Amino acid sequence: MGLEHQGFTIWFTGLSGAGKTTVSRLVEKELRARGCKVEVLDGDVVRENLSKGLGFSKEDRDTNIRRIGFVCELLARNDVVAIAAAISPYRAIRDENRARVGGRFVEVYCSAPIDVLAERDVKGLYRKALRGEIKHFTGVDDPYEPPLNPEVVIASDKETPEESAAKVIAKLEKLGYIK
Amino acid sequence: MGLEHQGFTIWFTGLSGAGKTTVSRLVEKELRARGCKVEVLDGDVVRENLSKGLGFSKEDRDTNIRRIGFVCELLARNDVVAIAAAISPYRAIRDENRARVGGRFVEVYCSAPIDVLAERDVKGLYRKALRGEIKHFTGVDDPYEPPLNPEVVIASDKETPEESAAKVIAKLEKLGYIK
Repeated sequence: MGLEHQGFTIWFTGLSGAGKTTVSRLVEKELRARGCKVEVLDGDVVRENLSKGLGFSKEDRDTNIRRIGFVCELLARNDVVAIAAAISPYRAIRDENRARVGGRFVEVYCSAPIDVLAERDVKGLYRKALRGEIKHFTGVDDPYEPPLNPEVVIASDKETPEESAAKVIAKLEKLGYIK
Repeated sequence: MGLEHQGFTIWFTGLSGAGKTTVSRLVEKELRARGCKVEVLDGDVVRENLSKGLGFSKEDRDTNIRRIGFVCELLARNDVVAIAAAISPYRAIRDENRARVGGRFVEVYCSAPIDVLAERDVKGLYRKALRGEIKHFTGVDDPYEPPLNPEVVIASDKETPEESAAKVIAKLEKLGYIK
């Protein structure tokens, strides 16, 4: 255990199906292989364990994202790499979390055209949202605010998950957060 | 950093005013002095950061305590000493958290006669509860189920906080969790 603070936060944001979970799991695997302690706070896991009862209004989404930020802070300041993978549609709350964890915050924007995601529609959610069977669906009838200055942009319509993960790892190396 | 898992959970339970926060902070200080990484999840802090909107029904209390257990698990498996300090009145949920974190769980029962706590009444809450101005107040009109086999029992009406903290530290040494 070094004397220096080793933790940081990687924050995946983007629409449903844009690769957040898949790429975050590959990044987790690589970081573990390099000896890092890592926790992935996936949107679905967090909704179950920290935010049951919250819905998808702006207020409830903000609360959910703030809770993930709180847990990332606890982990990162104890030398853990905290990886959040949640739609987190609102820029202000992501930036609030960035400020909260105190600087070692790597925002990964999972970018993909919504028509590609709607066509791929792995979970069948876009079809339901477009039919109006699901309300408050980000990108369909709920807003998504892309990051203005993300540390990494990945494009899941043009890259393999492995290529995207490699971009994240390269950025972490460049920042000096990992060797 | 050793190869062995270093984290564990210390769970303070007991009525309001029974010494949970005070003693947990002394234990935190001593553990930090010994080089441990420590986080205290205090009831009030958790209500603000993880459980805003929850009330004091049995269901809401259970949800709150499960969330603390989830975060303790995340921390403890990453070599952090997670200290929970929350009334946590229901035995079943405390035991659920004990099972969840997988064994390295030290339950500290902060025991004190309710008439002593009501007389001391540091926050003025017992007076309000006894007048009926606060509902669902543990020990007054809401139940408290003491642990059956806590690792440590402290008695804040008979011991100084320093004496209580020393008992916890001695137990951790005896269990081999700290040196």
